[in-house]
Order: sequence, then C-alpha cells, then structure tokens
Amino acid sequence: MKIGPDTSPTTAISGSNPETIIVRGHDLVANLIGSISFTEHVWLLVVGAFPSESQRRILDATLVAIAEHGLVPSVQVSRMTLATAPEAFQGAVAAGLLGCGSVILGASQEAGKLFQEVLVAAGQEDDLRPAAQAVISRYRAEKRSLPGYGHPLHKERDPRAVRLLDLAREIGISGRYAQAALAVERVIPAVIGKDLVMNISSAIPSVLLDAGYPLLALRGVPILARTAGLIGHLLEEQNHPIGFLMSHAAAAAISYDGPAPAGFVANEN
Amino acid sequence: MKIGPDTSPTTAISGSNPETIIVRGHDLVANLIGSISFTEHVWLLVVGAFPSESQRRILDATLVAIAEHGLVPSVQVSRMTLATAPEAFQGAVAAGLLGCGSVILGASQEAGKLFQEVLVAAGQEDDLRPAAQAVISRYRAEKRSLPGYGHPLHKERDPRAVRLLDLAREIGISGRYAQAALAVERVIPAVIGKDLVMNISSAIPSVLLDAGYPLLALRGVPILARTAGLIGHLLEEQNHPIGFLMSHAAAAAISYDGPAPAGFVANEN
Amino acid sequence: MKIGPDTSPTTAISGSNPETIIVRGHDLVANLIGSISFTEHVWLLVVGAFPSESQRRILDATLVAIAEHGLVPSVQVSRMTLATAPEAFQGAVAAGLLGCGSVILGASQEAGKLFQEVLVAAGQEDDLRPAAQAVISRYRAEKRSLPGYGHPLHKERDPRAVRLLDLAREIGISGRYAQAALAVERVIPAVIGKDLVMNISSAIPSVLLDAGYPLLALRGVPILARTAGLIGHLLEEQNHPIGFLMSHAAAAAISYDGPAPAGFVANEN
Amino acid sequence: MKIGPDTSPTTAISGSNPETIIVRGHDLVANLIGSISFTEHVWLLVVGAFPSESQRRILDATLVAIAEHGLVPSVQVSRMTLATAPEAFQGAVAAGLLGCGSVILGASQEAGKLFQEVLVAAGQEDDLRPAAQAVISRYRAEKRSLPGYGHPLHKERDPRAVRLLDLAREIGISGRYAQAALAVERVIPAVIGKDLVMNISSAIPSVLLDAGYPLLALRGVPILARTAGLIGHLLEEQNHPIGFLMSHAAAAAISYDGPAPAGFVANEN
Repeated sequence: MKIGPDTSPTTAISGSNPETIIVRGHDLVANLIGSISFTEHVWLLVVGAFPSESQRRILDATLVAIAEHGLVPSVQVSRMTLATAPEAFQGAVAAGLLGCGSVILGASQEAGKLFQEVLVAAGQEDDLRPAAQAVISRYRAEKRSLPGYGHPLHKERDPRAVRLLDLAREIGISGRYAQAALAVERVIPAVIGKDLVMNISSAIPSVLLDAGYPLLALRGVPILARTAGLIGHLLEEQNHPIGFLMSHAAAAAISYDGPAPAGFVANEN
Repeated sequence: MKIGPDTSPTTAISGSNPETIIVRGHDLVANLIGSISFTEHVWLLVVGAFPSESQRRILDATLVAIAEHGLVPSVQVSRMTLATAPEAFQGAVAAGLLGCGSVILGASQEAGKLFQEVLVAAGQEDDLRPAAQAVISRYRAEKRSLPGYGHPLHKERDPRAVRLLDLAREIGISGRYAQAALAVERVIPAVIGKDLVMNISSAIPSVLLDAGYPLLALRGVPILARTAGLIGHLLEEQNHPIGFLMSHAAAAAISYDGPAPAGFVANEN
Repeated sequence: MKIGPDTSPTTAISGSNPETIIVRGHDLVANLIGSISFTEHVWLLVVGAFPSESQRRILDATLVAIAEHGLVPSVQVSRMTLATAPEAFQGAVAAGLLGCGSVILGASQEAGKLFQEVLVAAGQEDDLRPAAQAVISRYRAEKRSLPGYGHPLHKERDPRAVRLLDLAREIGISGRYAQAALAVERVIPAVIGKDLVMNISSAIPSVLLDAGYPLLALRGVPILARTAGLIGHLLEEQNHPIGFLMSHAAAAAISYDGPAPAGFVANEN
Repeated sequence: MKIGPDTSPTTAISGSNPETIIVRGHDLVANLIGSISFTEHVWLLVVGAFPSESQRRILDATLVAIAEHGLVPSVQVSRMTLATAPEAFQGAVAAGLLGCGSVILGASQEAGKLFQEVLVAAGQEDDLRPAAQAVISRYRAEKRSLPGYGHPLHKERDPRAVRLLDLAREIGISGRYAQAALAVERVIPAVIGKDLVMNISSAIPSVLLDAGYPLLALRGVPILARTAGLIGHLLEEQNHPIGFLMSHAAAAAISYDGPAPAGFVANEN
C-alpha cells in the first residue's frame, strides 16, 4: 500500500562510513565531541548551523526556564509509571513527555503560529497593534483559545516570562516576534474584555523565533527541557519513591458515584 | 488498595510559591535562567549541585557524542510515527525514546553496573584485572551478555568511545571506573575466547561515573541526547517527509510465508 | 497551581471495597467474569450498559476488520522498538499505538464528526445530499481534507468497508449515519471534481454510530483492535525477529545529501 | 551498521494483494469479519489457529477480569495525559499502558515463567510440591520476589483469581500449570515463613497456559484488557474531567524538603 507524499529519499542531518560520522557537515569525533556544548549541538542539529553567542544564550536560558516546575502532571505521570514498571526507565520518560501537549507545554508552538500570523498581517507596518487586533478578533470569532496568555493564579506576568524577555533585550536579539507578543497582550483587554498577560508559553516562542529558531521545532524545546527534569525526578523516585503515595492521594480525592447493588459501599480507590 | 514502599511524602527537587520557584535550593528566575547553561542545569537537576568545569565538559561531550547517528531504529520509529500522527509531536518523540532500551542505548547503565561490581570486588587493589576476570567469568557462567563491549562491524574501538576516554584524561577526571572498563577489555580474550573492544556504551558510564554522575541516572543520558537528535529529525520530517518511504522499503524487504488459500499471491506489504 | 475545569470529584465507572469490585453497576466477580464476552465488556465499559446482540456483533466485526493489516508503519514501529528494548513489551505496544493518529487509524473519529455535522445540517430532511454538499463544500473552502474517503491504490471501495456496511444492514442497525456516509460519497464528484470512495475510516464510524457507540470514544476502536494485532507481531518478533532487518532496509533506502568534508563518502545507514 | 540476529525476512501473520487480505491463512473479508468474535480473532492472531470453545471462554474471562479496577496508577496516568494533551487520544492510551510493567500487570508473565520452571523441574512427577519447593528456594536464595503471590491488603485469595481458577475447572481446561500454581502456594509458608496467597497475576498465567496460550505473549493479555478500560476512562475524562483534580490532590500530598533561601515558604505543588 503506497501512502505518503512524493519526496526524494534523502536526509541532510547525518551520514557515516566505518571511519567517520558526519553531523550537519561536521566530523562528529574530530570537531564536535569535546569542542561544543550540548546546547550548541542542539542548535546545530535543529537549525543546521552553529549558533551565535546570543542564539546559544537564549536557547540555554529557555531550556533552563522550563526544565523543572515541581510535581506537575507530567512529572507525576512519569514517577507513577516508573513505580509500576521500574524495568523501563525509557518508558517512564516517554509517559511523562506524552503530557507535553497543547494545553500546557505545547502551547509554545501554537503561540508562535499566532505571532507569525500577526507579522504576516502587519507586513511592513511598524505598529503591530492593528494586525494583532485583527488576528485575535478572528481567533475569538472562531472560538479558539489564545495560546500563551493568562494564568490560572497570577494576574501579573509569569516571572520566568519576564526574565526571558529581558534577557532577549539585553543580548540584542529581541525583535518583531517579541513586539508581536506584546502587541497581542496590549489589545487583548479591548477585544476579549479582560486582562490576560503573557505567560511562559508566549515568552518562549517570541524570544526563540526572534533568535532564528524554526517555528516547526518549537514543540521540541519544552520536550527537551522537560526530559532533563524527568531524569532528576526518576533518579529521586528510585532512591525515595513517592509514585504510589501520589497515586493513593489522587485516588482518595475521587468518589464512585455510579450505580451499585443495594448495600454496596465503595471505600477503596 | 495500598501498594508501594513506606517513604516520607517529600521531594527535594523543586518547591514554589506564587512569587518564587526554587530548584535544588536556587531561585530559578533570579539565579539560574540566563546565568547557567542547560548542561549545568541538567547536572544540577540530577546531582543536586552545580558541576565543576570538568564535570560540565564531560557531560557536554557525552551528550554531543550520542545525540545523533543517522537513521537508526529509534529515528525511523519517530519519523514514521509523526508521518501517521502529525498532530502529536510529543508522541513521535516518545515513540523514538521507547527504543532506548537495553540492547542499544540503555546498555550504558548495564555497563556502569558491571564496572561497579568490578570495583567492589577489587576493593583497595591497584590491579583491577583479577576482579574484572572474576566478574566477567561469573557473567559468562550466568550466560549474561557483556554490556558495552564488541561491535557488529568494527574490530577497533568506536572512535566516539576513544574520544571520550581521551578527553576524560585530558581534563583530569579519568579514574577507577575507566580503569575498570579497560581491565574488563583486557581480560575478555582469555575469558571469552575472542576480542571484544570497548564501544560507546562502556565509554559513557566510565567517564561519567568517574566524574561523579549517579549510576541510577545513566539511562537518562542517552535519552536526553537522543531527544535532541529526534527534534532535528522531526523538523526535517515535516519539511521533507521520508517516514512513509522508509516504511515502504522496510515492508518490501519482508515476504509473507504463512498459510494462504490456493492461488493467493501476496504482493503488497 | 490550579489548572483545569470545575467538575465534581467523581467517577462512574468502577468502585470497590475489600470484598466487591463493581464495574458499571455490576459485581465483577459474581456477574461478569465468565458470563460475558470481552466485546460485551468493552461495550459495557465504554457505553455503561450491556450491548444488544446487534451492537455486540457490529463491534466484534469492526474490531476484527482492523486488528491486522500486515507490516504497516505501526507494526514496524512496534517490532523495531521491541528489538531494541526487549525488556519492555508494554513499551513496544505503546510505541505502535502512538502511530494510530489522524492520518491513518484515527481518521475514523474525524469522519464520525463529519457525518454528525451532515446530520445536524440536514435536520428532519430525508434526503441528506444537500446537507452533505453544504458540509463538504465548507471543508473544501477551509482546505481541510475529507476524512474517510479515497484510497492510495484502489478506485473501488475497500472490501472491508463494504463488508461492514453490508453486515450493518443484515443485522438491522444501518441508519442515518450510514446514509450520511453514502450521501457524502455521492456528492463528492460534483464538489471535489473526482471520485473518492468510502474507505475503512468512514465505514467504521458510520456503522458504530448507527449502533449507538459514542463519537468521542471512536478513537479507541482502532487502538483496541490494533493492540491485538501488535501482540501477535510481538510474539512473532520474539520467536522470529525481523525488527532489525526492516530497519536496515528502511535505512538503505535513504541517502545522505547534506554537506560533508571533501572526500567523504557515506556508505552506512 | 548491521545489528540483530540472522533470520529469514518473513512474517507468517498477514499477507495481502489488492483484492484479498489474508490473516493467519484466512480471507479476512470473506471468512472472519462478521463471522468470529474479537476474542476468537485475538486467539487466532496470537496463536495462529482458532480457539476451542473452552479456550475462547477462558480468554474472555481473563480479559473481563482485568480490564478495569478503578483509579489505579495507569488510569490516573492516562487521564492526566489526556487532560494536558487532549489532541492525542492515542498518546493518553500509550501513557497508561507504559505502566503495565513488572510490578503490577506485567507480573503475570513472570509468574508464568515461574510455573514453567516448576514443571520442568518436576518432569513426570505427579506431586509438584518438591519441585515447587526447590524452585522457590532458589528464588529466595537469589533474593528475587515471588511474582503472583501476596496482596497488600487481603489475606485471602483475590476473588477474581478464585473465579478464574474455578471457571478453568468447570470448563475442563485446568491442568499442570494450575497445579504448579497451587503447589507453589502450598510450599510458600515453609520456605518463606509466612502465608502468601495466589493473586490475579498467578491465576492468569495458570489458566491461560493450561489452555495453550503462549507464555511469551502473556504480557499482552493485561495490556489488551487494560486498553479497553482506558477507553472507558478517556471517554469519561472528556465528558467529566478529573485529570487535573487528581493531579492537584497528588501534588498536595507531597511537601518540598530540599534546601531553600532563608524565608522561603513553599505553598504550591
């Protein structure tokens, strides 16, 4: 069964022969191992060229910002999975990453698309607010949520977002994407009727896209960062397990309210 | 249903309140974002303290060494998964990581355990060969494979392994684990009856354990490195898809040899 | 951090105490184990009530129809994953299921939504073609693909689809959803400009929705069916491994066309 | 790079041409869809032949027994994953299945291996207790846990296990594996020093192996059963979400006890 697009059967990332491994045009052993940092290698792998110092710094800062944030759902998922399947460390990491979806960590890429739409609509205009207003009015008309804005608890901007935006300015990479992100924030009250400030999921794409990181690989950034956080938690889970404790607490918070035979009392979960 | 060990309901990785996020004792926004590299953050998350310059360098080198090696099974798996489920980038990464198991990428941790057994057996002895001989003789008696030695094609050491071992010596972290790895290599011919040289899966644990990286988190190193490689491949898959092409080639290589009604000729796969 | 909707902390699927496990109101041990088939139990778990004989038959037929179709991408993914991580059977199944996304197996649910839109647009009308025409014209205007129609190779309907539709008529459950599916097929040539016949991904939702199976659980049907197929393949992979063979063939079909140092010839993949 | 065993490039499960799909020698459309139940198809896919009535009944009973047991860790994991990544139903199922590992659901296959060791040790002997005693004494000497025995709460046998063993006797398939399971239970007090009764993970392999189901596919049985349970929960999660509620409760049960700046009080999790 032939399915799929017509493309040439090629890859441009890595090639090798028994003596040499080439990665993005460079000899891995001779020129990369021991010579560049992992963050520079990530940029090389994804973008195809070495990062500038500013590009490297903003990618480092972004990865540090979102690697770890306590016992969030993906961490709980990962630790519970290791508790029940300790033979498969890789399975516990994979389970945790499966929660990096559109609601929380994946919103970065959606926000990046939003900013791109604003910039396309704005064309050469300096003031991005009319374009921002047009785009988010359309989102509202289509009943789509606004990725990257608002926070369940805080009325102020997420301090991690503020730090990333400041850093981008300090190192001279802040540009049109950051302006688009701020323009959206500014027109939200008029269009939506309430304040929704930038959160980490709008800060990440704005600084990375301004730095030249590709939109279609944005989803990878929280995933890579979070993988590091999960490794720390899975080491702790082996030495000081709380996976089952969390699961007991979660189950105890929920009651059975379905049908039951007369006299049955549920008391386990 | 109460399952699981008795431990205190605590975590020592991260805590937060509405103003501040603490990671391993440090204020994330004030002291980490923009101040340390991702690799330093990985070490902090896993080990609980900042790395020395040597520790940072060897972790960087290791991650760079194994992030990418062409169209290996985990990359194929990840690209095929994105081709059939493009809505879930995180699912494609997770599928690729699920192949980081005991046969290929997970062998690092098994090799690390082997070296630890050698060091425990050796005690204060300078010469690790007798202990190495005892341990691998036992492995052989128990019909267990030797993790980290031998290579399907090459008789010489994997050049990436050589580079990592050399670097560890250059930066002064090479120690007892590297000695254990070499001692095992040296006694293999007498015990096993053929040469099996160190491959990347024995080089990684020897340099990282010498640097003070924890054994129970070794599985995380190839997983983190490979996540970066997968992001590069998944970006390429979106721009230049080959997932279905690889799948067609794989299927075409296999014939159906099961029972069939008279006259049936299989010609699709 | 409080995220998520406001709902009561309850579940209606299962409750238990040390003596009794209740599933959807029934005593699991006394009344379900040994008394009902797995397919009846699936219906009970998902729908909340026992299926009629017709409902049971169409769910059985659907699951049988899509459990297995040779070395498709999800099967390759699963077998390659077991080859590289044999310690985690569950990981190999999970990897295979991650490919049950919107392009191939997940299209059933998308097609089900399409038919529901047609039925809502049609209201009480007997003739569903005007509504079908309106809905697929809108899909076309929004540049969305039509889930469940067309086939890479065949101009005729998928024989599995034909069989499911025939069976639904034989057992008396064929209804408005099947009519909607056929109406869409009939108006496609005029709207799209070419013939696109029903494939398995439109047959499945039409027969199951007519039988009363819930739309939001349609994604589960190919997943459950495919899990059975994967178990068969993973048993074969243990006894007669072809995971690495498929991976070699897939890699050999792709060439490296990225930059390289002068004189480098890639000959491994 | 050539890795992997030398095997013929063949599969015996399914072959097809544009007109016909053959599964295990049968024409899928003409002879299987609408003619056999899903459980019969599962047996056909895994074993390669149709089941007898007794084989079908015991597989149905086993799948019904373990499909659902309330808000166990794998269900929590699956619901939390859907809450954070609602675009990927398949990812939520995969995450849940990744917890079907050696500690809980995967113990069935380990218990099956134990019984096989007992039967090999017993040879033609009628009384399996001496062999059982020898095998579990060896497990104890090797400090391995006994898969399939004991229960965190109950001193009596799990009622689901009792039901499966009774049913196997009723339908005439109970044999040497069930005897091995009981022999192990009987010698445990003398060897281990306390009572550990059969739980569901020893009942499943004993009845299925007696029925002729293959040992190396035992891991698949809880996975298939649990997939059905997860589909029910993921439908409920869409209509009545509790994923975030469970996650809040789990996080609230755990305190941060790591280092922190003076004056920092953690109050979020």
